[in-house]
Amino acid sequence: MASGTLLYAQSGGVTAVINASASAVITEARARKIKVLAARNGILGALREDLIDTSKESAAAIRALAHTPGGAFGSCRVKLKSLEADRAKYERLLAVLKAHDVRYFLYNGGNDSADTAWKVSQLAQAFDYPLTCIGVPKTVDNDLAVTDTCPGFGSAAKYTAVSVREAALDVAAMAETSTKVFVYEAMGRHAGWLAAAAGLAGQSPDDAPHIILFPERAYDETQFLAQVKKVVDRVGWCVVVASEGIQHADGRFVADAGGGKDSFGHTQLGGVASYLAGRVKDQLGLKVHWTLPDYLQRSARHIASKTDWEQAQAVGKAAVQFALKGQNAVMPVIVRTSDAPFRWKIEAAPLSKVANHEKKFPPGFIRKDGYGITDKARTYLQPLIRGEAYPPYGTDGLPKYVALKNVAVKKKLPAWEG
Amino acid sequence: MASGTLLYAQSGGVTAVINASASAVITEARARKIKVLAARNGILGALREDLIDTSKESAAAIRALAHTPGGAFGSCRVKLKSLEADRAKYERLLAVLKAHDVRYFLYNGGNDSADTAWKVSQLAQAFDYPLTCIGVPKTVDNDLAVTDTCPGFGSAAKYTAVSVREAALDVAAMAETSTKVFVYEAMGRHAGWLAAAAGLAGQSPDDAPHIILFPERAYDETQFLAQVKKVVDRVGWCVVVASEGIQHADGRFVADAGGGKDSFGHTQLGGVASYLAGRVKDQLGLKVHWTLPDYLQRSARHIASKTDWEQAQAVGKAAVQFALKGQNAVMPVIVRTSDAPFRWKIEAAPLSKVANHEKKFPPGFIRKDGYGITDKARTYLQPLIRGEAYPPYGTDGLPKYVALKNVAVKKKLPAWEG
Repeated sequence: MASGTLLYAQSGGVTAVINASASAVITEARARKIKVLAARNGILGALREDLIDTSKESAAAIRALAHTPGGAFGSCRVKLKSLEADRAKYERLLAVLKAHDVRYFLYNGGNDSADTAWKVSQLAQAFDYPLTCIGVPKTVDNDLAVTDTCPGFGSAAKYTAVSVREAALDVAAMAETSTKVFVYEAMGRHAGWLAAAAGLAGQSPDDAPHIILFPERAYDETQFLAQVKKVVDRVGWCVVVASEGIQHADGRFVADAGGGKDSFGHTQLGGVASYLAGRVKDQLGLKVHWTLPDYLQRSARHIASKTDWEQAQAVGKAAVQFALKGQNAVMPVIVRTSDAPFRWKIEAAPLSKVANHEKKFPPGFIRKDGYGITDKARTYLQPLIRGEAYPPYGTDGLPKYVALKNVAVKKKLPAWEG
Repeated sequence: MASGTLLYAQSGGVTAVINASASAVITEARARKIKVLAARNGILGALREDLIDTSKESAAAIRALAHTPGGAFGSCRVKLKSLEADRAKYERLLAVLKAHDVRYFLYNGGNDSADTAWKVSQLAQAFDYPLTCIGVPKTVDNDLAVTDTCPGFGSAAKYTAVSVREAALDVAAMAETSTKVFVYEAMGRHAGWLAAAAGLAGQSPDDAPHIILFPERAYDETQFLAQVKKVVDRVGWCVVVASEGIQHADGRFVADAGGGKDSFGHTQLGGVASYLAGRVKDQLGLKVHWTLPDYLQRSARHIASKTDWEQAQAVGKAAVQFALKGQNAVMPVIVRTSDAPFRWKIEAAPLSKVANHEKKFPPGFIRKDGYGITDKARTYLQPLIRGEAYPPYGTDGLPKYVALKNVAVKKKLPAWEG
C-alpha cells in the first residue's frame, strides 16, 4: 500500500448512480494501491470515527456496487455551518482524518458537501496538515454550478420520461370511458429540471405530457384549468407533469394547500399532484388519476441512463486521479464539448466556484406559453437520458444488488461528544 | 384470405402486455390468412361499428406492438348487463359482426369481458349465426378464475418488487437523519395480489418490505403503528406496502379516510399511503415518505416480466387456434404443470367457468402475523416475475413504442342509437 489513506463519504439524498461513483473511486484507488476507508452515514461517520474498511470487500462486490442504487455506506442530511460556527466539528473531522492517516478526503454530494469539502481543505491548510480534499458531484436536482450536469439527474430524468410515456399510453387507451386527466408529480425542489425531462416523452403538441408546470413560472389556477380543458377537448385526454415546487404568484407553495387535516383531525399529507387532481375533479368534473413516484424516481437503477452511469463513474475515477495529483479543493465536473454528437470530458473545477452557488434552470428552456419545453431544453436534456445500463438480474427476476459487508475500522480516538 | 373475419377487442384496464396478446392474435391470424378487424375502444367500437382494419399495419408495426404498453386499439370500462337487460346491445353487436362477416370474436379482458363473450356466443347460437367466441385473459388484478395467472399481473408484480427493493435501498441509506418510514401503495382493488408481490423484494425479516397490509386482513391501526415502531427500533427504518383496498374491521375502506376537504373546501384526494403516512407522522413522530405509483405500475413495459410477456403472447396465439378449431365459448388459460422448474401450458377453459367467478387470494399466502407472505406465496409468485423482456430503445433514450395507423373500416349499418 502507498502511504496515505483515502476517505470517501456519501452525502445528501442518494441516487441511482452514486454507488457507481463509489465503485469507481474504490476501483481506481485499488489500482493505485491506495487504501480506501468509507465513512458510515456520510459526515456523521467521519465525526464519530465510524469508518468502514473497504479493503474487506471483494472485487466482485465493488463491481456490483456500480449497478446498485442507494448509498452503500449510508448517507446523511447534515450540513456543517461556517468554520466559525462549527469549528469544533471541523477540528474533530481533522483529528479523525489524522488518526487514520487520511491524506485524501472525497466527499460525494451536492452544494453543501462541496462547501464542507472546501472548508475542510482550508482548515487542513491552517493546521498545516497535508490533505487533499475533493468534492464528487451528485444530485437528482441537477443544481450544481459549473458542471454540465450532476450524476443522478440523468437516470431520474430517464425514469421520468419513460414513465410519462408509458402512463400516457394507458390513459390514451382508456380515456373515452375512464380517466381523462393524469397528473404526475416530479421531484426537483425549486427547480424544474425533472419536470422538464418529462417533456422528452413527447414530440408534438398532442403528445403527452401536454402540460408541464414549472416552479419557475407562477401557478395560475384559472389558466391551468382552462389549458387542461382545452387539451381534453382537442386530444380527448391530458397528461400533466407538475414539479413539486410550483408556487402561486405570491410565493405560497401549491403543495402546502395539498395537505391539511381530515375529518378526524388527522394530518393529511398531500402534495402537488393530489391538489391539482382535486381541482381538475372539482372544477372540470373530469375523471382524474395522479401519481407521486417519490423515491422511486431517484432510486430506479433498473432504468438508469447509460450516459448518467458513465458520468457517475467518470467523476469517481477522476476524483481519485485529481487527489493523487494533489489537486486540492477541486471537484471533477462534466464539461460538454459537443451536443451532436454528444461529447463530454471531465475537468477539475475549484470547489470555491461550486460551493454555495446554484445552477438555475434556464428561462430559455421553458416554452413561451409556460407549459412545455423548448428545443434548447431538448438539446440539453436528450443526451443525458441516452443509453440503457441495466443491472444484472437473478433467476428470481430481481436485480442483483449488492449489500456490502461494511466492516468497521477499529477506533483510535475518544468517542465524539458533538 | 380464408372466409370469415376475426374481430378482436380490448376491454377494461390496460396492462403492460395486453398489446402483446393483440400482436400474437394478429400474427397468428395472418399466418392462417384470416382477416383481423379490431374494435376501437373495446365493445363500444363493436357497437358503434367503429372498426379498425389491422391489415393496414405493417408486419414491423405488429411486431412492435408486442413490446408496446397501453391498449393500441383503445379499451373501455363498459359492462354489458344480462342478455335480458341489454338485449338490444347484444343484438346490435351481433348485427355488426354479421355485417362484417365476423365469424370469430376475441374479447381480451377480465371477468366482465369473459361474461360478455359468453353471452354473445349464446345469442349467436339462438340466432343460428355461426360465431366462435373466445375470451382472452388479461388483468393486473390477477382475479380470473381457472387460469394460473392473468397476463398483465406478472409485469405489474415485477415492477412492484423491483421498485420496493430499490426504494428500500434509498431509505436504508438515509434513515439515520432523514426518512425512517416509507409507504408504498399497491393496486389490486379488494385482493392482495400486487401487495403480496412486493414481498418478493425481501427474503429475511429485516429486509424490506417489513410490513405488508392486505385487504384480506382487517386493518388495525394500533397494531399497525406498534409494528412500524418495532421495525424502526430494530432495523432503523421501515418499508410498508399497503394494498389500496385495505379495510377496517367494520368494512370501511381506509382509503376513504385518506381524502376529504382542505381548508378551502377543495376536494382532497388521498388514498391509503397518504393516510398511513399521516398516521405514522402524527402518532409516531417519524419522518415519513410515501408513493402512489398508480398507472405507472400497470403500464411499466420497460420492466415487464418475460414470463408474463410470453404468456400474454401464448394466450393470444392459442385464442386464434381455438377459434379456428371452432372451440366456441372458451378462454385460453394458463395451466402450471410444475413450480420448479417452472412449466406451464395453455388449455381451453369454458367461458362459463371463468365468467362471474373470481379467483380469491389464498389465505395460506399470508404469514400468520398478517404482515408478510408465506413460502407458498413465494413459490406461486416468483416464477411470474422471472425474466426480463426489454423493449428496444431509440438513440433518444426512450423505448420505441409503436403508434398504429388504426385505419377505420367503412361502415355498413345505420349509426348506433344506444
